[in-house]
Amino acid sequence: MREPWDDKPNEECGVFGIYAPEQEVARLTYYALYALQHRGQESAGIAVSDGSTIQVHKGMGLVSEVFSERVLLELNSKGKMAIGHVRYSTTGSSLLANAQPLVVHYQKGMMALAHNGNLTNAAELRDELVKDGAVFQTTVDTEVIVLLIARYYRSSLEDALVKTMLDLQGAYSLVIAADNKIMGVRDPYGVRPLCIGQLEGRYCLASESCALDTIGAEFVRDVLPGEIITIDEDGLHSRQGLPSQKTAVCAFEYIYLARPDSTIDELNVTESRRRMGVELARECPIEADIVIPVPDSGMTAALGYAEESGIPFAQGLLKNRYVGRTFIQPTQEMREVAVRLKLNANAQVIRGKRVIMIDDSIVRGTTSSRIVEMLRKVGAKEVHLLISSPPVLYTCYYGIDTAEREKLIATNMDLEEIRQYVGADSLYYLSDEGVRRALGNLSVCMACFDGNYPAGMPTGAKAKLETCKGKC
Amino acid sequence: MREPWDDKPNEECGVFGIYAPEQEVARLTYYALYALQHRGQESAGIAVSDGSTIQVHKGMGLVSEVFSERVLLELNSKGKMAIGHVRYSTTGSSLLANAQPLVVHYQKGMMALAHNGNLTNAAELRDELVKDGAVFQTTVDTEVIVLLIARYYRSSLEDALVKTMLDLQGAYSLVIAADNKIMGVRDPYGVRPLCIGQLEGRYCLASESCALDTIGAEFVRDVLPGEIITIDEDGLHSRQGLPSQKTAVCAFEYIYLARPDSTIDELNVTESRRRMGVELARECPIEADIVIPVPDSGMTAALGYAEESGIPFAQGLLKNRYVGRTFIQPTQEMREVAVRLKLNANAQVIRGKRVIMIDDSIVRGTTSSRIVEMLRKVGAKEVHLLISSPPVLYTCYYGIDTAEREKLIATNMDLEEIRQYVGADSLYYLSDEGVRRALGNLSVCMACFDGNYPAGMPTGAKAKLETCKGKC
Amino acid sequence: MREPWDDKPNEECGVFGIYAPEQEVARLTYYALYALQHRGQESAGIAVSDGSTIQVHKGMGLVSEVFSERVLLELNSKGKMAIGHVRYSTTGSSLLANAQPLVVHYQKGMMALAHNGNLTNAAELRDELVKDGAVFQTTVDTEVIVLLIARYYRSSLEDALVKTMLDLQGAYSLVIAADNKIMGVRDPYGVRPLCIGQLEGRYCLASESCALDTIGAEFVRDVLPGEIITIDEDGLHSRQGLPSQKTAVCAFEYIYLARPDSTIDELNVTESRRRMGVELARECPIEADIVIPVPDSGMTAALGYAEESGIPFAQGLLKNRYVGRTFIQPTQEMREVAVRLKLNANAQVIRGKRVIMIDDSIVRGTTSSRIVEMLRKVGAKEVHLLISSPPVLYTCYYGIDTAEREKLIATNMDLEEIRQYVGADSLYYLSDEGVRRALGNLSVCMACFDGNYPAGMPTGAKAKLETCKGKC
Amino acid sequence: MREPWDDKPNEECGVFGIYAPEQEVARLTYYALYALQHRGQESAGIAVSDGSTIQVHKGMGLVSEVFSERVLLELNSKGKMAIGHVRYSTTGSSLLANAQPLVVHYQKGMMALAHNGNLTNAAELRDELVKDGAVFQTTVDTEVIVLLIARYYRSSLEDALVKTMLDLQGAYSLVIAADNKIMGVRDPYGVRPLCIGQLEGRYCLASESCALDTIGAEFVRDVLPGEIITIDEDGLHSRQGLPSQKTAVCAFEYIYLARPDSTIDELNVTESRRRMGVELARECPIEADIVIPVPDSGMTAALGYAEESGIPFAQGLLKNRYVGRTFIQPTQEMREVAVRLKLNANAQVIRGKRVIMIDDSIVRGTTSSRIVEMLRKVGAKEVHLLISSPPVLYTCYYGIDTAEREKLIATNMDLEEIRQYVGADSLYYLSDEGVRRALGNLSVCMACFDGNYPAGMPTGAKAKLETCKGKC
Repeated sequence: MREPWDDKPNEECGVFGIYAPEQEVARLTYYALYALQHRGQESAGIAVSDGSTIQVHKGMGLVSEVFSERVLLELNSKGKMAIGHVRYSTTGSSLLANAQPLVVHYQKGMMALAHNGNLTNAAELRDELVKDGAVFQTTVDTEVIVLLIARYYRSSLEDALVKTMLDLQGAYSLVIAADNKIMGVRDPYGVRPLCIGQLEGRYCLASESCALDTIGAEFVRDVLPGEIITIDEDGLHSRQGLPSQKTAVCAFEYIYLARPDSTIDELNVTESRRRMGVELARECPIEADIVIPVPDSGMTAALGYAEESGIPFAQGLLKNRYVGRTFIQPTQEMREVAVRLKLNANAQVIRGKRVIMIDDSIVRGTTSSRIVEMLRKVGAKEVHLLISSPPVLYTCYYGIDTAEREKLIATNMDLEEIRQYVGADSLYYLSDEGVRRALGNLSVCMACFDGNYPAGMPTGAKAKLETCKGKC
Repeated sequence: MREPWDDKPNEECGVFGIYAPEQEVARLTYYALYALQHRGQESAGIAVSDGSTIQVHKGMGLVSEVFSERVLLELNSKGKMAIGHVRYSTTGSSLLANAQPLVVHYQKGMMALAHNGNLTNAAELRDELVKDGAVFQTTVDTEVIVLLIARYYRSSLEDALVKTMLDLQGAYSLVIAADNKIMGVRDPYGVRPLCIGQLEGRYCLASESCALDTIGAEFVRDVLPGEIITIDEDGLHSRQGLPSQKTAVCAFEYIYLARPDSTIDELNVTESRRRMGVELARECPIEADIVIPVPDSGMTAALGYAEESGIPFAQGLLKNRYVGRTFIQPTQEMREVAVRLKLNANAQVIRGKRVIMIDDSIVRGTTSSRIVEMLRKVGAKEVHLLISSPPVLYTCYYGIDTAEREKLIATNMDLEEIRQYVGADSLYYLSDEGVRRALGNLSVCMACFDGNYPAGMPTGAKAKLETCKGKC
Repeated sequence: MREPWDDKPNEECGVFGIYAPEQEVARLTYYALYALQHRGQESAGIAVSDGSTIQVHKGMGLVSEVFSERVLLELNSKGKMAIGHVRYSTTGSSLLANAQPLVVHYQKGMMALAHNGNLTNAAELRDELVKDGAVFQTTVDTEVIVLLIARYYRSSLEDALVKTMLDLQGAYSLVIAADNKIMGVRDPYGVRPLCIGQLEGRYCLASESCALDTIGAEFVRDVLPGEIITIDEDGLHSRQGLPSQKTAVCAFEYIYLARPDSTIDELNVTESRRRMGVELARECPIEADIVIPVPDSGMTAALGYAEESGIPFAQGLLKNRYVGRTFIQPTQEMREVAVRLKLNANAQVIRGKRVIMIDDSIVRGTTSSRIVEMLRKVGAKEVHLLISSPPVLYTCYYGIDTAEREKLIATNMDLEEIRQYVGADSLYYLSDEGVRRALGNLSVCMACFDGNYPAGMPTGAKAKLETCKGKC
Repeated sequence: MREPWDDKPNEECGVFGIYAPEQEVARLTYYALYALQHRGQESAGIAVSDGSTIQVHKGMGLVSEVFSERVLLELNSKGKMAIGHVRYSTTGSSLLANAQPLVVHYQKGMMALAHNGNLTNAAELRDELVKDGAVFQTTVDTEVIVLLIARYYRSSLEDALVKTMLDLQGAYSLVIAADNKIMGVRDPYGVRPLCIGQLEGRYCLASESCALDTIGAEFVRDVLPGEIITIDEDGLHSRQGLPSQKTAVCAFEYIYLARPDSTIDELNVTESRRRMGVELARECPIEADIVIPVPDSGMTAALGYAEESGIPFAQGLLKNRYVGRTFIQPTQEMREVAVRLKLNANAQVIRGKRVIMIDDSIVRGTTSSRIVEMLRKVGAKEVHLLISSPPVLYTCYYGIDTAEREKLIATNMDLEEIRQYVGADSLYYLSDEGVRRALGNLSVCMACFDGNYPAGMPTGAKAKLETCKGKC
């Protein structure tokens, strides 16, 4: 799944839901998923409901590959509400069977559910259900949630949902179409984002506000941690499903994952990235000729660094906009070509300069080392690599694929070793405090940097972490 | 072919050629075409020669779609030299039959030819050949060139090429594989770029230097106007095919078409664009809060404007990186969504600000007007639209698709009318002199701005232009 | 789904299972499904088990379209046993989600199940399970069976299977991979076929013996009605799951559905069809010049008629072997072309002749009428249409799609009306007794002809039938 | 290209042309090509003309794969006449570039040409043209013909065609769309078939009469050897282009290639095959229990043999109707499966019997030997293989791919050796005289049996044949 130049954490999902009988709900969901495409590129799905029957279309690939005009028209004709999902998945479970939304027949009729996040007790819940005679057809957490809701259902879907939330541990933002309404749920820590929009008097839910902008909906507010939102013919209803815990929205959404034009929990992503650049300039001032970003991820922080430091910003690296997924990999002999196909150093900008290069994160370090080498080749006098976040030391259990712990460069090398590995003249990571300052007084999850998991860990994982603590 | 948001001129081709028996020539050509993909996205082709037999693979679509590993291996096994081509084409002639390189059997064996540019006397040449019993299987100029070479061939391919050049009018950069060598030709005005690279003692030719960087070749020099380059077992040979005319390299390559990391005729594209931004700031200083680019095309000029004016640069518009070609178009009712799917205004950056927005050109004006509207909607106090090139008033006959003359906004409206149409508070185009200053003392073709066609015009077109002169 | 010329009942499924650790089980299953392709062309699937983990690959289309060499190699590497399924489905539920085998995680690990047949109480069983908190992800009976097995499972899969069989009504031939073994089940009436083969000391199960022949397995015997077959490391085991009822194997398997080279319940299909032709000649002797079949379905019966009557057999109709599924339908104006694309009358054979044309069945009658017209056009003096089975009057509830009852020509017209509709000089259907004589003393289900449903009917259906009895 | 079971000669092309302004000419051509699909399955093309402009669509694969409804509608809207082509091609030149019709611009405008047959002097003609400055873009004979017509063209297309025919040697049936008319040409020996049909007052041309039947056209007559047919607004015109030679229509069209329902040069194909079976029974009477065909090719001859001999005809071998081109080949270990996937012996028919098996030809013998083995395995007491044509000893230079001479079993083994190789109890080939008797007094080309090439041979080939004469 990972390209040779892909050395970034991967978001695992994006969700959307809308109740709007007067609108083409499938088409709106399609455009919303388009805006959320950065959150998952491996599969996409839309489920449309007319209040009782639900029709779903799912497929592997990008939103634009999975849906055709014919499919959208077919779906549109079926409904007054819709939910949608885009998914990134780690190798192995990258199957169509695991694509979402998951649609089932249960006691009250049909239900469609889409999930962003990751449960830490999914295995335990699954085992209990199986012991009780249940069967599982997929390997996704979503199926566990759906089976629990179906079993807890007596007369009210909301009540069944609250009971289910009591069982779930970990991170989850859900959208559900069932029982003639759309529902949205955010876990009690609010790890994954979810917000509410309004479009011509009707309501919708989206992982990020950029999806609301795209379909022309007004941003209303973020869903609160532990809150259950219900959208139906009468409008928007709220119920606190579980008491809200100390909010712990994922810091990496701001650092890298979310789209720059989104605003999550009232903090704009572009602004937070710019501030990380500013903090970086304050923590690590360097005498240099130019500040360049690693495009596109280091762009905003580099502008912030340049602004704060007064050192000119320049475009020293150029990204090929046509790099696609079906690209033929260079052979072993041509491995240097691999990075140059995506990024090229502009010799005329770099030659003879002392360069500060800003990136948002380093996961395995291979790409960074090749870029530094590229800059030196075209004549950079010095290369200083500054990262706008702390070293990634711990696995994320809340829905982000950061690569396995053993492959994280920062768990295997200390700062000086990493500097040597990437070949930079100096290397600096923004401090935890720097990130927190940049994010204002927002209460965030920084487990991948500090190992403090607010919403719990899988049982097995906990033991393992304790063993190695201190050494890593 | 044109998407609703596609309001830019389109390059019509990119070419590459390499002689390197020790290398995987098809694979290198593939990567070079990848780097030249911005010059044409409708078809791609690679022809490989073992010195006598030539094998070709062509297809509709992106380089990554047309070639598979299997095809590359098959091609590689066949050769010691290769040429490649990417093509953009206007509607109607967008056929596989027109894809290049064109491969033919002629007196001396096989020949493959790839062409970037446009002949102004192709129709006349074609008519003469047909009268003489020739048949044409395609509608591309390339076939005219190939037939002329075959007819002029006596004992030397170079001589036949010189005779052919005497017949050709207009713009052409050619790469040819024939007679156990690779040849490159640039028309006497040097309208389209073509440069020479060196890779482990062997030579190659490319439309832009970024292709050389990508495959790890050293830039040697640009091919001179009217020069014929021959690359064979003995290295690089030069012959002045026709006397060089006053150079007239296309100004639009610098303004928009070429990749920012390329250097054409010794001027770096990023640097030239930055200088256009600087010139814009000098010609049109405005009191404002932020300078924002229309991504990606206005990026570098906006940085130049911000640098020269001291007004902060900001990312006020965000581009969706996943907008693909197979995208389902919004319906008439959702037309506003069309632009927002590609570009979204970041309200938190824009709200309450006086905004200078920089773009490189306006062709039809529809996209500009929607972006301005979008900025106002999220609270921009003022929007000033500054264009880093003069108004496009004339059709290009040298290989760029600028849309038909009647559809060019600047031929139909004066400056104030355009300002009202796009809805900006003010509108300014960089002057011809400003462009020339930014391009240093380079002698360029600016026919699309000033109507002076250095390499001639088609007969019919000339008459038409004279009729309307003064009014437009 | 139905082509204009498709006027035959459609089989709904074919199944196969094999336990053979020394063999490439996925590849053998692939070839077996190839041989069973006539039983279902809409989806295909293979599930492979290594004794604990099961991997499955399913897709829409023909076996040759669904599987690639890469997929087979991947599956092969996973297992020592496999089951496979081909499926025909009626419009509407023709979804990938409904493709089989169905693979689930249950208490004892993983289980894959493939089903041929149709339950008459599936809706009731489904309702009960849903009331008890279960959810359904598909609309196929198979999911009901799997959930029952999982719920009944205590310590033995066989016991759970027996309990499940007690709940099931209707027709079912199942193959199951679970618990380190392959199991096969046939309902107590033996409506759908299932037989046992032996290959190099290992055992397999198949819907028809032609699949055994194809992979080189020896035919062992048919599975008995109500019998549970288990195949594991120790060989073949049998247990009578439910007491066998009066056997009622489907007569239509012999008349049309099964492959001519298969032998089902000890009666060869080709032989049974030949005998139907013989019976037809005895029941309905006609003075004529030639006997021609409607290819391919009337072939064998026509040979039998010719043999018994002494009238020469001739090939008066020619079938186009390239008629595919993606064929572009003729427009309304060209509707006559539709049948001629598939069948063409050989004028030189037909002209001036009194023709006996033999077909195996008429469902809606449209195709028959066009063929008769075609024969007259090329000069047939008389056309006598003889059908080697009785009129189809009743819907099949046991897994065959005979078209809806209202569309069956024989429920709407009497014999003389049908004769006029198809335009034949005379029309004759083989009698029920004729079919029974041709099938020897085999006890068969002839519900579609006589309305006697040995394995029960769906509750709703029963009422409906009673209402209309006598009139139809 | 050849499947393991493909041991038959392959036809190389089928052509069709129609002039009918009132009709959907592209759609009619599509259906006609459908009926001619057996003559070529590797590429298909349709060119439509409005009298001046010609539009063409070509692709690799079956007619049903190459054309979509959208393409047909687009083509239909363009024209009042059309020509079409289906092509089989030998490996290597199986390229889209070689697909037909070939469409060119020449002096008089546009021309489309489709060709069935093979020139024996194509290489010489091509060399001469190239020496004169022409270039070739394909490797098909058709391009040679087109260039000659263009060069000879002065004021009349018919005259240019006659001059071209004077240059051509070998076999050719052509259809041409040019100059506001459709033309058809058959070489002076009439080696390949071509016939004329009438549809609602308009005329059309087809390789075989089955294409006329399919679109509902009346058969008018065969095109005469050397005749040029012109079809235009005024109807049908004939001109004898070259004096007709002693007719030499290809005997293999009757033996195997043509569709059974076609009538070529006034002899029906089914009838000729039946007579070959009758002749076989007279030349080689055998005491046996049953006569079985190798389906489908031996079917009609087997019926003839059974009729003449009085030995019962039986269906001992069953062909799988779903064997497709994308089938995954069995591995080396499973090679026996390869033939069984296509053909299965019906044990109940064969067991204990003395079997006469009829096939139309043996090319390499591998399939025959596997079928004989299969029959013995299911209990055949004796197997007698009778072939309804003489041994294939010579390469066809007139457009049929019979496999290379060295691979023809009959050039490498004598009768007894072949019998041993295929494992039959006896083997008999119908004599040359037997074939001639079956074909009545038709004058045919039997070069592949007797080495007498009526329309000449390629220069090189002639020498080679002389060398080996006598030994083979």
